[in-house]
Amino acid sequence: MKRKPNERARDLFASELRVANLGLASFAQALRAAGCPVVDVDWRPPAGGDPELARLLDGLRAESGDGWIAQVERANQAAVERLLAAQPTLIGIGAAQDVIPGMTPDTILHAGPPVAWERMCGPMRGAVIGGLLYEGLAASPEDAERLAASNGIRFDPCHHHQAVGPMAGVITATMPVWIVENVAFGNRAFATLNEGLGKVLRYGAYSDEVIDRLVWMRDVLAPILAKALRKHGPLDLRTLIAQALQMGDEGHNRNRAATSLFIRELAPHLARLAEPGDAVARIFEFLNGNDHFTLNLSMAAGKCSLDAAADVPGSSLVAVMARNGTEFGIRVSGTGDRWFTAPAPKVAGLYLPGFSEADAAPDIGDSAITETAGYGGFAMAAAPAIVQFVGGSPERALETTRRMRRITLAESPAYRIPALGFAGTPTGIDVLKVIDTGILPAINTGIAHKEPGVGMVGAGLVEPPFECFAQGARALAETLRASEVQP
Amino acid sequence: MKRKPNERARDLFASELRVANLGLASFAQALRAAGCPVVDVDWRPPAGGDPELARLLDGLRAESGDGWIAQVERANQAAVERLLAAQPTLIGIGAAQDVIPGMTPDTILHAGPPVAWERMCGPMRGAVIGGLLYEGLAASPEDAERLAASNGIRFDPCHHHQAVGPMAGVITATMPVWIVENVAFGNRAFATLNEGLGKVLRYGAYSDEVIDRLVWMRDVLAPILAKALRKHGPLDLRTLIAQALQMGDEGHNRNRAATSLFIRELAPHLARLAEPGDAVARIFEFLNGNDHFTLNLSMAAGKCSLDAAADVPGSSLVAVMARNGTEFGIRVSGTGDRWFTAPAPKVAGLYLPGFSEADAAPDIGDSAITETAGYGGFAMAAAPAIVQFVGGSPERALETTRRMRRITLAESPAYRIPALGFAGTPTGIDVLKVIDTGILPAINTGIAHKEPGVGMVGAGLVEPPFECFAQGARALAETLRASEVQP
Repeated sequence: MKRKPNERARDLFASELRVANLGLASFAQALRAAGCPVVDVDWRPPAGGDPELARLLDGLRAESGDGWIAQVERANQAAVERLLAAQPTLIGIGAAQDVIPGMTPDTILHAGPPVAWERMCGPMRGAVIGGLLYEGLAASPEDAERLAASNGIRFDPCHHHQAVGPMAGVITATMPVWIVENVAFGNRAFATLNEGLGKVLRYGAYSDEVIDRLVWMRDVLAPILAKALRKHGPLDLRTLIAQALQMGDEGHNRNRAATSLFIRELAPHLARLAEPGDAVARIFEFLNGNDHFTLNLSMAAGKCSLDAAADVPGSSLVAVMARNGTEFGIRVSGTGDRWFTAPAPKVAGLYLPGFSEADAAPDIGDSAITETAGYGGFAMAAAPAIVQFVGGSPERALETTRRMRRITLAESPAYRIPALGFAGTPTGIDVLKVIDTGILPAINTGIAHKEPGVGMVGAGLVEPPFECFAQGARALAETLRASEVQP
Repeated sequence: MKRKPNERARDLFASELRVANLGLASFAQALRAAGCPVVDVDWRPPAGGDPELARLLDGLRAESGDGWIAQVERANQAAVERLLAAQPTLIGIGAAQDVIPGMTPDTILHAGPPVAWERMCGPMRGAVIGGLLYEGLAASPEDAERLAASNGIRFDPCHHHQAVGPMAGVITATMPVWIVENVAFGNRAFATLNEGLGKVLRYGAYSDEVIDRLVWMRDVLAPILAKALRKHGPLDLRTLIAQALQMGDEGHNRNRAATSLFIRELAPHLARLAEPGDAVARIFEFLNGNDHFTLNLSMAAGKCSLDAAADVPGSSLVAVMARNGTEFGIRVSGTGDRWFTAPAPKVAGLYLPGFSEADAAPDIGDSAITETAGYGGFAMAAAPAIVQFVGGSPERALETTRRMRRITLAESPAYRIPALGFAGTPTGIDVLKVIDTGILPAINTGIAHKEPGVGMVGAGLVEPPFECFAQGARALAETLRASEVQP
């Protein structure tokens, strides 16, 4: 005999209640508060709940009888193998205009996807102003703004020149840059030397203090470091990052260990140079005072590792994630140089004394290349102490790394996390996995003041807009449909 | 109606079985294999299963109507407060005979409790031979053995002279030593400079390579470091250790982070000295090549912290744990300078290529002062990567720190572990808690070859003999009974 619903409900509540909660975690809180055991299932509607996108993905599978999906999987296998085989190696320092392809005296490179002066956010404008003052192309901030608004300056993304820049990411012609070579494939990447935290160009500050520091970096720091590096020989950044991940760094927003290891590795060679003791001492003081010094090396390492995995036809691997403070943009291996952009999100984070969320510029910088390459936020489990800088809890740091496994193609054989039983970091974001799971990449980042000329105001955690991945998936589907080699 | 036992058993197995397992963990394994949920309770018989000791502890409570226990608790509170208030600070480097109280040209200090030449283990004999060669008191190893066996040398534990030494712990008259002051209380501790791993004096090696390195350390390294340190000023070791615990060190067998931080802190001052670049470069190379360089600082920091908590009447705080390779010895705050000793145990660990457990000397060294002070093995949760050096798993590292909470009096406000939600390290071992729980302190340590002249063969984990704590508890009970001030 069929029982009535209220009887079934009575039986249900008479037995021990155990609940599996799908979706919103808040539903589980009241149950837990009442002492009911709840298992949270991190489920989100496929394709971000977008029916058209879901149909497109289903269509990809249906149209080709899984042929396209098999093609994507083969392409992803090839792409991620190239990413994992990368051997990023620091080989030298040079002036941007001498070493970066396509760099000219009137070029200013910036972070993220393309953006014209008119649409640049405050901190990027501040960094451009500072860059023009530094180059002597402008005599005052007002002068610099006029020049920037004219057609006298060529703005271009760092990523269009094998380069990456943190925050505003401004690179001007005479700035010294790291030359990092992926010796497994022969391609190179470039990044500026890190200025430290606080009032610095990349956060949009351009006071005399900022410009003086940049001049010292160009005229004293870079030449002496370059000499020491020549004495040292090529420096294996994969090993440096791997060791730092065993020492509480994640390679994006915590670089204290890598910076320490870099200093002790270069120190004997710095001591052997016939340079004045005071100059070398000041360099040591600068390095010791800047725990983010190796961030830019970490970024260039990620860039040249990923460039080797870019342009693999059919691959849904994310090759670039970058933000210009106005838009967040990604590139997908199988769709080449195309950017898929959406408005840059706000960062959730911790603020320096005297600042709050109201002061914050939207998400900015090429530094998300570290997450794209499989560390940074993806390696947060290696860096529980980072939560004091970006917010959150050590448990969340572990959970973040575990969650990133669901949207990545591999675990790194080089970058391992002791606290997770030495598991490799989740590496190689798959656009289709992001679409399928609705899980977005976790990014650790700094926060710039929204106005030009101020600088850093905090650090925190951010996720890219889902829309970038949706566009990337649609574009990849189009290239598969249009490809001459039908499955 | 009372049911028969077999009916009760049938009912038991018909329902869902959930088991709480007391004692041996192996009982739970078969249950787990069969899919049965098991909760392990880490229970051991009180007083190590020693009825006489259990009666003694019960007696202490009964005789005084808990008055003695209250007295012990008050004393422990006072002792552990002094331990937690310690401010170990590196203030300089000096020759042992110039700075260590009671040190003479014919004195050789050694690790652990007192031991005569006749009963010294192989590596300690090796280190004594090396020490005599280094001092020019013997011309050959045979000569050195004859001198050591005569009455011409005064052997004394480091701990009798405010000093600590890793492994054999040999300190001779002209060796340079760190001078570490507990600036909160004004007391000092001393330790040699660390030689590195492998063929080194403290592991019993005494070849020319070993002696030449010691001579270079005395004639070049120590004077130049001392000058740099004077320029730097006092170096706060509590901060150094606290930072290193956030970077994957535990301060005993993993010192990579502390050594890196030490190098970058001293580097500007080394660069500013008017010393030849090659000499400074060689110092940087030596430091960069020795990830254990700050171990001895970590030990001296622990020693001067604990000395301030020693000699508190009635306190059951462990003030020293130390081994000479023949015996393991502890001292208890409330029983002053008395040693409670038992045969030194074997270390369970990982061996260098070509060596095995058959080559190992028993547990040796004063380095267990780090665990006594609340880091080292007690902070293993901070250093999951250490398991590659000493064995075990990252889970065990977490579990070890949690277990040590059950035998300690406090959590350190200075030394915190990110992976445990920034909880302080378990600090201040209580002899009575060790007796009550049967849980022994967890120690990370190196392993020396059992023969003189060989050196390091591995690293691992060890626990002290329970008997040391049993003796300590009995002696404390006697002092309480004998004390004139009755409760």
